[in-house]
Amino acid sequence: MIMTPNIIKVRKIIAHVRKSGKKIGFVPTMGALHSGHLSLVRAAKKECDFCAVSIFINPTQFGPREDYRKYPRTFKRDQQLLKKEKIDVIFHPSVNNMYLSRFSTYVEEKYLSRVLCGKSRPGHFMGVCTVVTKLFNIIQPDIAYFGQKDYQQAQIIKRMVRDLNFPVEIKVLPIIREKSGLALSSRNTYLDNQKRTEAASIYSALRLAKKLIKDGERNPRRVINKIKSCIFLQRRAKVEYIKIVNADNLRDVRKIKGTILVAMAVYFGKTRLIDNIVVRV
Amino acid sequence: MIMTPNIIKVRKIIAHVRKSGKKIGFVPTMGALHSGHLSLVRAAKKECDFCAVSIFINPTQFGPREDYRKYPRTFKRDQQLLKKEKIDVIFHPSVNNMYLSRFSTYVEEKYLSRVLCGKSRPGHFMGVCTVVTKLFNIIQPDIAYFGQKDYQQAQIIKRMVRDLNFPVEIKVLPIIREKSGLALSSRNTYLDNQKRTEAASIYSALRLAKKLIKDGERNPRRVINKIKSCIFLQRRAKVEYIKIVNADNLRDVRKIKGTILVAMAVYFGKTRLIDNIVVRV
Repeated sequence: MIMTPNIIKVRKIIAHVRKSGKKIGFVPTMGALHSGHLSLVRAAKKECDFCAVSIFINPTQFGPREDYRKYPRTFKRDQQLLKKEKIDVIFHPSVNNMYLSRFSTYVEEKYLSRVLCGKSRPGHFMGVCTVVTKLFNIIQPDIAYFGQKDYQQAQIIKRMVRDLNFPVEIKVLPIIREKSGLALSSRNTYLDNQKRTEAASIYSALRLAKKLIKDGERNPRRVINKIKSCIFLQRRAKVEYIKIVNADNLRDVRKIKGTILVAMAVYFGKTRLIDNIVVRV
Repeated sequence: MIMTPNIIKVRKIIAHVRKSGKKIGFVPTMGALHSGHLSLVRAAKKECDFCAVSIFINPTQFGPREDYRKYPRTFKRDQQLLKKEKIDVIFHPSVNNMYLSRFSTYVEEKYLSRVLCGKSRPGHFMGVCTVVTKLFNIIQPDIAYFGQKDYQQAQIIKRMVRDLNFPVEIKVLPIIREKSGLALSSRNTYLDNQKRTEAASIYSALRLAKKLIKDGERNPRRVINKIKSCIFLQRRAKVEYIKIVNADNLRDVRKIKGTILVAMAVYFGKTRLIDNIVVRV
């Protein structure tokens, strides 16, 4: 396993691999790896001949009052985990090398990014699209892997790849959960034991939504109101949004039909958690 | 010479060429080719093993009151010219294939694009950056060629390539001029004979600026005022801007020193012409 923060060096490695005709799989991460990331890495290992993982906490996707500074940094541990997975290269550039002085070019998706998390996190998805564009241009993967927990992000990346003709295939893999149902997230490390238990209510609410819909409820407002109570049972939870949207364009639906997404963002203390479930009716 | 409007087909051709280890040169154009374009094509032919030219009149870089509809379309002639140059592939996609329904992703340079032509043409350089990103992703050239007549565009593309890590080298080639000094432009076809003669005053003004500076003038305001009179001699000329800026960051200079750009945009009737000259002191 090669580790490098150097853009020129990783380009050289990749150019060499590409020349040999190998298929390159890529998993972009911000480190603080958990089993969700590892499921992506394993898929990349299985489906490709060469597996690159980036670890880069991207400042441009954090808002000024968000957790960029305290975002968990566990590089040593990440490194060990990835070594065990026998990946080929870890690319871990510095902020200064990724954003040179007078950086002024951004990639922005302007439709899917306007709803759900985009409402409370202006600029977040622009930061994501910009850094993913950079990473795609550096690594030039054949397949890139994203997790469904960030459903909106995955949809936006897919749209970006389509719109800008990136020669990359995007694969989105299922959410990995704790036994309690809590979706794995690097931000879970912010939670104390009690909040962690309480946060499992998010998945209970999502499962309830699915059950209500499967049982015939077609009114999104009624579903949302019912599942809200699951969350409100927890004293310290603060709902940012609970939405039922078209799984394709992310817009609110009046009537539940086709493939829909139930998505929510909930604060437990200062920790903002997101989760979602796709339901087909 | 292969001609195709098909993105998948051109990708296949390029993938094959790339596999063979050939260096790919690329000249993006909007057609209506003139000797300026051909100078780029010849450089690409000389420096690369494979030469691709795109012909695509990109709607997203035209403002609502600009000349998208009447922009000269001379595809048959362009094709013949390029055949003579022995280029390898003409890629001429349709608007519908380049901008699929629900297109929503844009690339924007936010500093260099705010001045000069960017002031009167909001969204123009966003359209340029977006389509060039798409073309780079489709063609994946080693070297792409741009003309210095669009100096600001070339600077923005270079910045974009740096910021977003495109694996492309950008080469900017000198302005090609008529005997009169008028810079070649597809839009020159809009000019009648008299306006065409009058438009040569643009280059006279630029040469005068260079002479004044070489003779020791260091005050940009005085240079601009003097060369304006060259243009104002023409009854039907309307100056949009005449600027003396830092050739690197495109910002106004208080005192002429280092490498500066004298740039202007002038209307002759409804025809907007741009031109520039770089002066080193």
